[in-house]
Amino acid sequence: MSNTSIDAAGDGAGLDKPSSLVTMGIKNRESAPGDGGASRAHERYLVRRVHALLGNPPVRIELWDGYGVDGRGHGKPVGTVRFRARAALYAVLTDFSVGMGDEFASGRIVVEGDLVEVLVACGSADAAVGRGLPGRVARLLARAPRCNSISGSKRNIHQHYDLNNDFYSLWLDRELQYTCAYFAGDDFTLEDAQAAKMDHVCRKLRLKPGDRVVEAGCGWGGLARHMALRYGAKVTSYNISTEQIRYARERARREGYEDRVDYVEDDYRNIRGEYDAFVSVGMLEHVGAKNYRTLGQVIDRALAPEGRGLIHSIGRNRPRPINPWIEKRIFPGAYPPALAEMMEIFEPNGFSVLDVENLRLHYARTLEHWLHRFEKSVAVVERMFDPVFARIWRLYLSGSIAAFLVGQLQLFQIVFARERDNAVAWTRKHVYAE
Amino acid sequence: MSNTSIDAAGDGAGLDKPSSLVTMGIKNRESAPGDGGASRAHERYLVRRVHALLGNPPVRIELWDGYGVDGRGHGKPVGTVRFRARAALYAVLTDFSVGMGDEFASGRIVVEGDLVEVLVACGSADAAVGRGLPGRVARLLARAPRCNSISGSKRNIHQHYDLNNDFYSLWLDRELQYTCAYFAGDDFTLEDAQAAKMDHVCRKLRLKPGDRVVEAGCGWGGLARHMALRYGAKVTSYNISTEQIRYARERARREGYEDRVDYVEDDYRNIRGEYDAFVSVGMLEHVGAKNYRTLGQVIDRALAPEGRGLIHSIGRNRPRPINPWIEKRIFPGAYPPALAEMMEIFEPNGFSVLDVENLRLHYARTLEHWLHRFEKSVAVVERMFDPVFARIWRLYLSGSIAAFLVGQLQLFQIVFARERDNAVAWTRKHVYAE
Repeated sequence: MSNTSIDAAGDGAGLDKPSSLVTMGIKNRESAPGDGGASRAHERYLVRRVHALLGNPPVRIELWDGYGVDGRGHGKPVGTVRFRARAALYAVLTDFSVGMGDEFASGRIVVEGDLVEVLVACGSADAAVGRGLPGRVARLLARAPRCNSISGSKRNIHQHYDLNNDFYSLWLDRELQYTCAYFAGDDFTLEDAQAAKMDHVCRKLRLKPGDRVVEAGCGWGGLARHMALRYGAKVTSYNISTEQIRYARERARREGYEDRVDYVEDDYRNIRGEYDAFVSVGMLEHVGAKNYRTLGQVIDRALAPEGRGLIHSIGRNRPRPINPWIEKRIFPGAYPPALAEMMEIFEPNGFSVLDVENLRLHYARTLEHWLHRFEKSVAVVERMFDPVFARIWRLYLSGSIAAFLVGQLQLFQIVFARERDNAVAWTRKHVYAE
Repeated sequence: MSNTSIDAAGDGAGLDKPSSLVTMGIKNRESAPGDGGASRAHERYLVRRVHALLGNPPVRIELWDGYGVDGRGHGKPVGTVRFRARAALYAVLTDFSVGMGDEFASGRIVVEGDLVEVLVACGSADAAVGRGLPGRVARLLARAPRCNSISGSKRNIHQHYDLNNDFYSLWLDRELQYTCAYFAGDDFTLEDAQAAKMDHVCRKLRLKPGDRVVEAGCGWGGLARHMALRYGAKVTSYNISTEQIRYARERARREGYEDRVDYVEDDYRNIRGEYDAFVSVGMLEHVGAKNYRTLGQVIDRALAPEGRGLIHSIGRNRPRPINPWIEKRIFPGAYPPALAEMMEIFEPNGFSVLDVENLRLHYARTLEHWLHRFEKSVAVVERMFDPVFARIWRLYLSGSIAAFLVGQLQLFQIVFARERDNAVAWTRKHVYAE
């Protein structure tokens, strides 16, 4: 746990407490009695439908009375999903993804066996969704409904990132990097890999002392600190999370680099000034596809003629809607785009894509570290919030590992420059130099 | 000139002689007298319009009597485009791009000063075309009209690639690499850079001895030879250019690696078998955007579960139509796609893009080498074909240099794999290892 943590009160800026937004409407029924009666014929039919809806994975789904469905032809199931109560089955049938997630959170659905393995098994069955559709059709079907206007974004970000800095300190690395790490060596710890990620980004941007950098979405300020202290950059970092900005500013003041990093509590759309580099690590997921042209215009306004840009974001191999439970409980307004969709940032705004790297497996490993640390501190989390919250977070972290492992999610790092810039690097050797 | 060259007769497969397709309808008027009379008022107006249509570049445009238009506010023009004859002006006004190109080829338009510099000046003014349009609108406006059916492709490829192997031997490197080289070091010769390109591709594909590789569009067979002899791969290479296949087979027979490379004279759509790697260097430009899903299906059919793929192609920062003169005289049916368009190969077919590298400046330098060698042998080219053909080629090579320098064209190398493949490389270090 970070020794630089500060309390989580914050001024809520008139918004609800974020943890209550996360758990809203879910009661803890962990110790409530399960259904006593035998399952009925139509319930047995329905659980077979649930198994089919999941794509017939090698996972046993079991009702309260022990009646269960195994995947056919798979051998031993990797785990069991047990409906402890009749109401959980009906909740799932009413709203599949949200029902599954919320009933797991309430404790009326329990998973026996390794949760990640069970989710990988279900995810594998589901990963081919949308395959075969032409790009434009897939795009029409996938676009997220939520509003990412300036005030909408503020609310959406508040629900997740303003939760509690101490909570995130329990399971993130000491620089509070809440984005994909870069495991450049087999023996890398999470701290090594997060430092390597920041270096990877800085090298791709060819940062040098004195460079003016603008960052869109700075989290707790770790990358900005790294760019300033290790690369001599002059950084301006935008973020709309009150808690994160408070932490970042406080740390900069205490550690004495306030003159080199300016943490601005504002929306990326309000970026002003001219910069040698634009960087955004883990914000695009919250921008929403219909704002990509605007983001590109913001970058076009901000970047010097020979400026370099890097966007690091979760993405997809093809457009598909975000999981509704994740959108409701974890990331309201979020949308991980396909590469073709991301091009709407660059194409209309005179940028040239120089380099794209997919770090999918690195995000699976990063999340494995987070989940492991989270579980070690889960008793603290339950005291800090409640068991429902802890189960929501367990499902989110485990499900994200599974999604990266089965290829439902990707992690793209995109380097770009202005299309008339002939001072761009000829090769990528500088990224890999010792 | 390659000592492995073979004569150019070939069996035309019922097609016209390709060089006559290139120069068709253009007479050599180099030594024809220019117009004697003074230009008229409306002709002076029209030449000002031509200058404006070119985007008011820092280039003087001059009529036969010496009347000229300079770019305003540019200082000294970088060169002069002179209309030697009244008919050339009217040809340009009738069909701008084709008229410009064909009148240059005929000798009725001459350029004084460095041709590349003049074209860069004109290209700079033009490079912003299509900026600001949303991707889908740009795509609608850009799509090429020509047919790339199996028989259409055969005709289109014949016009360019079946010209004459001896001609290409005059100015390509000794491995006859007719695609972007990779200048990994400042002192690289063209031969060095073409070998480095082939290594770059093989490293990205992590080729190892015994790998089964299928290549779509193999040119004169150089990359296949390299993969077989340097990396121990077993290569099957498809190409529909009769001349190229004949050269490649003859060389394999003479140099004794027929057992390791199978050169197949057939369309990529007819690829059969299973392979550990799919590679295509410089073919996608001829596929046509409406065939990308089909190409992806071909790859999906051909690739082993842990197979790796690489596509290397000229592209764009955003969709726009190919230059009509280039399409008519040089590359019928060709279309350089934007990255978003290329995704139609991968998105519907279950592939994951792992790596994209933009080698734009490398192609400008490659073309500079080609142009330099071409000019050293231009007397041979004029004897081999005629002066019109030589001027067409000069304009094409010079114009391509300019297009890469001003960012109208890009060069993308895309590495991909199946989305469920977790055996993909964790980093790109292997590409840069000494």
